[in-house]
Amino acid sequence: MKLIIGNKKYSSWSFRPWIAMRVKGIAFEEELIPFDFAAGNPAIRAATPAGKVPVLVDGDLAVWESLAILEYLAERFPEVGLLPEDIAARARARSMAHEMHGGFGALRSECPMNMAREVRPIAVSDGVRRDVARIEQLWSEALSASGGPFLFGEFSNVDAMFAPVVNRLEIYALSTHEAVARYSAAMKALPAWAEWAAAGRAEPWIVEQDEA
Amino acid sequence: MKLIIGNKKYSSWSFRPWIAMRVKGIAFEEELIPFDFAAGNPAIRAATPAGKVPVLVDGDLAVWESLAILEYLAERFPEVGLLPEDIAARARARSMAHEMHGGFGALRSECPMNMAREVRPIAVSDGVRRDVARIEQLWSEALSASGGPFLFGEFSNVDAMFAPVVNRLEIYALSTHEAVARYSAAMKALPAWAEWAAAGRAEPWIVEQDEA
Ligand SMILES: N[C@@H](CCC(=O)N[C@@H](CS)C(=O)NCC(=O)O)C(=O)O
Ligand SMILES: N[C@@H](CCC(=O)N[C@@H](CS)C(=O)NCC(=O)O)C(=O)O
Repeated sequence: MKLIIGNKKYSSWSFRPWIAMRVKGIAFEEELIPFDFAAGNPAIRAATPAGKVPVLVDGDLAVWESLAILEYLAERFPEVGLLPEDIAARARARSMAHEMHGGFGALRSECPMNMAREVRPIAVSDGVRRDVARIEQLWSEALSASGGPFLFGEFSNVDAMFAPVVNRLEIYALSTHEAVARYSAAMKALPAWAEWAAAGRAEPWIVEQDEA
Repeated sequence: MKLIIGNKKYSSWSFRPWIAMRVKGIAFEEELIPFDFAAGNPAIRAATPAGKVPVLVDGDLAVWESLAILEYLAERFPEVGLLPEDIAARARARSMAHEMHGGFGALRSECPMNMAREVRPIAVSDGVRRDVARIEQLWSEALSASGGPFLFGEFSNVDAMFAPVVNRLEIYALSTHEAVARYSAAMKALPAWAEWAAAGRAEPWIVEQDEA
């Protein structure tokens, strides 16, 4: 299997399947295509008709879209526990994962993921504050129901979807909620997190629009 | 089961699980909460913490997000065929469904679904033209591979995700592609389509921002 990704410093969508595969010990090769937004990312467009990373290549099959890749991995490796076992928990986990994918527009545009940034608050809109409040609600409810340390107990796909949000809440100092602190500590203690973050910090490329 | 939806004339996200359940003969009660964007949709916010429709209520469980509802229905009713049978086809179907959920921003904002609108072209941006070209590519490739009449043969979740797009391409006269004509004809021949569209046309409410 090969996972095609963007810059580890900035590519939040790439981070999602990458961290899930590493945490679950799924072997894969990695192909990193550095962003070139000024030129319209021709190398990414050449690699996939959707024109976006991540893409998972498994033999003849190319799977694109972060959450579709995570669903495919859950089917391909049922034994690693990428989805909660109970049907109701799975439904709630998917509701949260999909809300992340389609929502939180203010947070996503004003507060880009950045693995090399020091913690430093910025001025944010009310939309960001509403997004953060909703995330605090979702995380604290799920962690209370499951007992943690991840949203539905062990690390699963929905945690992969929220991993970049842990970085955003931290580097822009957006939340002092206890559940956020606890969940962020669990996430950042993963060896996979440290591996990705160190590689991101070591990258030479700067994407201006992601330096908030 | 109860499906909470918005206006049939305008609510494209509500239409997705609704048409899937009707096509597959899954029994459900319906609760329609008319939009009140001026007041911030208080009735929708009271019905669900995410503040958005659709929501599926199944006993104690509330599932939100259109595509999470569709995944839940596929698990709850495996016999109705909401997902393609082959793992690779399922992966491609999900990639397309997720690309629809997170993408096509220009089409979604400039060309709202409207079940009561006559066919009438409007001026659109280059972004809309790119979105339409990508949809034509996705649909024609999937229909060639499967033989149709739906994207992966029989009607499945990914068709539910694209159903509102059939309306948009038609009412704003955005495509003359043969695969679009063929696929749209199959979709509009569904009794479930006619039932939803007639109910939408009969609604008294006008949402100004959705009248392009
Ligand atoms: N909905 C997609 C989003 C993917 C996406 O937006 N990827 C960005 C990088 S994080 C990208 O490839 N951008 C390149 C471009 O838009 O030209 C997913 O979940 O995978
Ligand atoms: N990603 C969500 C989108 C849901 C959504 O945006 N629903 C709209 C109606 S189509 C809504 O409830 N809007 C009310 C509001 O934003 O106040 C899904 O797939 O279900």
